Amino acid sequence: MSVDHNAIEKTDAVLHEGEDSVFYVRDGALYIEGVRASDLAKKYGTPLYVYSNRMIRERFAEIRRDFLDRYSRNDGLGDDRAGAYAAYAAKAFLTPVMCRIVAEEGFLLDVVSGGEFFTAIQAGFPADRIKYHGNNKTIQELEEAIGAGVGRIVIDGLDELFIIEEIAERAGRIQPVLFRITPEVSAGAHDHITTGRRDSKFGVPMDEDVLYPLVGRAVESPHIHFLGLHFHVGSQLFDPAPYIEATGKALGVIDEINRRFAYSVPELCIGGGFGIRYTRAEERQPYAAFTGPVVALVNSYCEERGLIPPDIGIEPGRSIVGDAGVTLYTVGSIKQIPDGPKYVSIDGGMSDNIRPALYGAVYEAMLADKAAAKAADKETVTICGKLCESGDRIIDGASLAKAERGDILCVFSTGAYGYSMASNYNKIPKAAACLVDGEEARLIVRRQTYEEMIAPEI
Amino acid sequence: MSVDHNAIEKTDAVLHEGEDSVFYVRDGALYIEGVRASDLAKKYGTPLYVYSNRMIRERFAEIRRDFLDRYSRNDGLGDDRAGAYAAYAAKAFLTPVMCRIVAEEGFLLDVVSGGEFFTAIQAGFPADRIKYHGNNKTIQELEEAIGAGVGRIVIDGLDELFIIEEIAERAGRIQPVLFRITPEVSAGAHDHITTGRRDSKFGVPMDEDVLYPLVGRAVESPHIHFLGLHFHVGSQLFDPAPYIEATGKALGVIDEINRRFAYSVPELCIGGGFGIRYTRAEERQPYAAFTGPVVALVNSYCEERGLIPPDIGIEPGRSIVGDAGVTLYTVGSIKQIPDGPKYVSIDGGMSDNIRPALYGAVYEAMLADKAAAKAADKETVTICGKLCESGDRIIDGASLAKAERGDILCVFSTGAYGYSMASNYNKIPKAAACLVDGEEARLIVRRQTYEEMIAPEI
Repeated sequence: MSVDHNAIEKTDAVLHEGEDSVFYVRDGALYIEGVRASDLAKKYGTPLYVYSNRMIRERFAEIRRDFLDRYSRNDGLGDDRAGAYAAYAAKAFLTPVMCRIVAEEGFLLDVVSGGEFFTAIQAGFPADRIKYHGNNKTIQELEEAIGAGVGRIVIDGLDELFIIEEIAERAGRIQPVLFRITPEVSAGAHDHITTGRRDSKFGVPMDEDVLYPLVGRAVESPHIHFLGLHFHVGSQLFDPAPYIEATGKALGVIDEINRRFAYSVPELCIGGGFGIRYTRAEERQPYAAFTGPVVALVNSYCEERGLIPPDIGIEPGRSIVGDAGVTLYTVGSIKQIPDGPKYVSIDGGMSDNIRPALYGAVYEAMLADKAAAKAADKETVTICGKLCESGDRIIDGASLAKAERGDILCVFSTGAYGYSMASNYNKIPKAAACLVDGEEARLIVRRQTYEEMIAPEI
Repeated sequence: MSVDHNAIEKTDAVLHEGEDSVFYVRDGALYIEGVRASDLAKKYGTPLYVYSNRMIRERFAEIRRDFLDRYSRNDGLGDDRAGAYAAYAAKAFLTPVMCRIVAEEGFLLDVVSGGEFFTAIQAGFPADRIKYHGNNKTIQELEEAIGAGVGRIVIDGLDELFIIEEIAERAGRIQPVLFRITPEVSAGAHDHITTGRRDSKFGVPMDEDVLYPLVGRAVESPHIHFLGLHFHVGSQLFDPAPYIEATGKALGVIDEINRRFAYSVPELCIGGGFGIRYTRAEERQPYAAFTGPVVALVNSYCEERGLIPPDIGIEPGRSIVGDAGVTLYTVGSIKQIPDGPKYVSIDGGMSDNIRPALYGAVYEAMLADKAAAKAADKETVTICGKLCESGDRIIDGASLAKAERGDILCVFSTGAYGYSMASNYNKIPKAAACLVDGEEARLIVRRQTYEEMIAPEI
């Protein structure tokens, strides 16, 4: 990988220009690491998800440097300080290649279903490094996971502990579990993805007669290893306050568990939800902005009360892959409504990115080979998909160079919840995905064929 | 099929009890035609889409009786009255079996993508009875469709006529086309599915310098057979007013075309959007409530002006399959939040039905084997899915008999845009679908396997 930084044009068009030589403009064209974006479109077709290996690796490295290594259990400071662990949240984007990257980076893997668990195991990810979430794991899913030796199950349902006990007993296993608690914290973002409220479907309420009998049973059970507590406050957050607030509540529970059951809770997982930059209006905070104050609070709280501090876990998903991924489309029909909006249609849409329709999510975009266009030469357009639905608009009010049929359009920050939420609505096959590594690119998801798409249909 | 109507219990629980012996309760259990719902769940697993063949056939029959036959070209009344034609809108629900039903019923098929076209052709549906929609058909899609002899293309993009002309010329075909116009009518429903507004991404604006040059070219072109106009006013409508308003506008255009180009427009398609009953709050209108006033207006307008009336086309999709389909789920985790909602979790969710999260769509549900529960024995619960997202709730405030793990839950009126918008979010495989016909049921979509789901992932 050799990028001549002198040849890189200064532009206001690339969302992540601060991240040196991951996304940049050269000779008027958008590059992703060492590869011209439009060359990827030519090679693999569109729509195409493109991931930057370097940006993914940098995010993992940042977590290792500022969190895992910093609070390492091997720091010689002993048990009076919280340790750290981190799991990649698979639901943001999971393929076998992604599993292998997570394994190489030394992270645990968070899964939320039998399908994610299956994918990980197929990719050779060790079961004991998998953490299993979900508000309604089926009995079959639990049997498969426990049978395979899953590392941690995060209990969410009120009868789940008893089901796990029974399966673990039959399997001759001692199953490590955490309880997901509802921290009763309300953290911004879209109502759909705010998860820490008391009335959430997730988590075990912290009530006296709900949580503590379950914890007591977990502590006592010969088939269960009670590892600790988990919470999740929300998604796409930029402020550590809700994490700190929820940590405070969880510490109260940990203190109570210690007093009641004479049990030192080994782990406290504060979930994910770390915000990324979808548009210029957002500024990603470093992981340390969240983990620093949380670890400080845990250490001071535990020191005050003479508790052994739990290890702190985090579960980044979106913040690892979200802005490391973009989607390339080919421009088709262009329509100027007289005295109305101008529509630039692309060859994908809500089938490969449901977030604008579902959450009102906002993105930025550029034409890959008109990347050096000056602001004065741009026009304001609506970028819409090809699906038969008015809500199938990807960006309202995008500022774009003058588009023509055949141009390649790049939408930034689509790496999380694009592919993973993709549908075959309008019987549009799922798009391909590739991973760029320096000057090389390789396919990591083949484009679905029509035949594959309808294969289950009799 | 022999239903003992005396044995059918009266209940307020079945949404479609008016539709004799399609959905009903016997011995406390929900039946779909002659089959007990929970038996289907046992046989095929859950989540399971279940369609009633009879209800689908009845809807087709209603259209034939009250529309196609009533305004038949063979009625002996000659060309001074509008004829009728109808196409099933595939995007609501399309599988090869559904294609065959549409063909048997003598309807045209509306498709909106290469994938829908492929599915129809694979199922043996005649290409010349297919009508091709879409605001951004790709050139490849147009080439495939024209090459296969597609019956009608509904032009939406401003450069599409020229592209079709070129392809048709190369293929040695005279391609029948309609223009989708934007009728500038605003028709209720969710913003995402209101399609007739002037600022819509769909349709050719009716402006002097946009629409008429295109029509003139279509009339003149040796490679094009100009068939007429199409509009679509919205979705899930119960009021004929927007159809009548839009028809009035379209007739003005037809009159203008006749004067300018001395051309009698053969067809006017008024689209779909006919509402169904999702809940008791809605009352489906018969097709004739929409088509009757439209045909009357067309005939009187054309008589007044001495025009040959166009044939009127409709494109029902949701209204054919929407309330003919239900989804069966298995209840898993049940969670009473102290002083909060009670959650009943199912083994599917927004992966098989995105409509509640996407549009705020409202459904009704019942426990299939507790179908005779009295109102006094019911409780108000939130039915939530198993996906790792707070917005994954299928029904808020459902009135349900006391649910237990393992109960089969039936959500009504999921036949349209359930399967067709399904995703693999959280790597949940796509659900199976079966078709009940009297006392028989057969699988029409196999449950996707984990292996199939991740097959394109390298």
